[in-house]
Amino acid sequence: MTATDALTPTERTTLRRLPARGSYERAVIDEVLDEALICHLAFVADGAPMVIPTIHARVGDTVYLHGSVANRALRAAGKGAQVCVSVTLLDGLVLARSAFHHSMNYRSVVLLGDATVVTDEAEKLMALDAIVDHVVAGRSADLRPHTDVEVRTTTVLAVPIIEGSAKVRTGGPVDDEEDYELDVWAGVLPLRLVPGEPVADERLRPGIVPAANITGWQRS
Amino acid sequence: MTATDALTPTERTTLRRLPARGSYERAVIDEVLDEALICHLAFVADGAPMVIPTIHARVGDTVYLHGSVANRALRAAGKGAQVCVSVTLLDGLVLARSAFHHSMNYRSVVLLGDATVVTDEAEKLMALDAIVDHVVAGRSADLRPHTDVEVRTTTVLAVPIIEGSAKVRTGGPVDDEEDYELDVWAGVLPLRLVPGEPVADERLRPGIVPAANITGWQRS
Repeated sequence: MTATDALTPTERTTLRRLPARGSYERAVIDEVLDEALICHLAFVADGAPMVIPTIHARVGDTVYLHGSVANRALRAAGKGAQVCVSVTLLDGLVLARSAFHHSMNYRSVVLLGDATVVTDEAEKLMALDAIVDHVVAGRSADLRPHTDVEVRTTTVLAVPIIEGSAKVRTGGPVDDEEDYELDVWAGVLPLRLVPGEPVADERLRPGIVPAANITGWQRS
Repeated sequence: MTATDALTPTERTTLRRLPARGSYERAVIDEVLDEALICHLAFVADGAPMVIPTIHARVGDTVYLHGSVANRALRAAGKGAQVCVSVTLLDGLVLARSAFHHSMNYRSVVLLGDATVVTDEAEKLMALDAIVDHVVAGRSADLRPHTDVEVRTTTVLAVPIIEGSAKVRTGGPVDDEEDYELDVWAGVLPLRLVPGEPVADERLRPGIVPAANITGWQRS
């Protein structure tokens, strides 16, 4: 294994609770980051924790986030501040024979690090396209170029994938041995995020149909 | 309107960005909290922001969270520390005619406050049942009582619903006027979290079928 295949655990990312569910493998971390449509970005503002949900995109070893330059949260987070990026995918409800052993099947990633504001123009444009394509693959190629004003009024943050971990739970409930005799249904209710029919904008020009990356959109 | 119908905006919860999307109404906030299956709990650990995804349940004016007493995160968050609870529901992808106006339809809530560890036994038991019933309505009534050991090894945190806000985006894209002439599909791809078929635990005793709250499970 090379250094890039897995992150190195640190004091604060060493998984102590249920370590068997944890992983530092980049393949696992990247898959979760790439499938999730939103992340939760946490930072410290005036000593207090603050979280905002936002869209992201991973490109190589970096997670990009974006928002208006007027966004206080992004401004605060981007001042070289420590941030925590958390991404969670819900795969199912785990219904056990006791309340205690109820759980969820999920895949989650937490990344810790210093966010920086992307100032390089080419990197910024690349990140903005990556964020669109993260949501709908190939979409950015169908769009007009970004205008200078759009680029100038958008802040792009970069969070390096250096310190962090993934956590994955799969499978059925694990009950106390004596509870298997109980007369209660136990198992998993799988959950999936599914698209409905595309709803055309009311001002859509006649004759324009959604492309295959929209009609065939799916996650995972 | 009485004082309990809406939260009072504070300096840090006053919505500056797109305030039209924001709401302090308890009805809006409660609906989002009640529909979401997970929340993201942020707190400050050694000066750095940390986020964990976890299950929650709202009961009246309180959001309850739980976890193992061995959970460092809950322990840290429960020491009267300031926390931020963030809940996000994704309702659709908003595909505009420019990258800049791409968005998502979502409903989100952020709560700020001091978390406290629930020590009252009756409140703790009530909260544990509420968390199960939050995921599958009525499920706790089908389960054996909590054991003393289970209760003792579980930490329940209470976060009061005092300071916070909701943010809701609905509807189609809002494009720049000149972009409506472009030859690109625009509209909304609705998203929904849907259950699959229940998967029985492999050690389920013969003859036990899932109840209607499982076979008919749905969110929103």
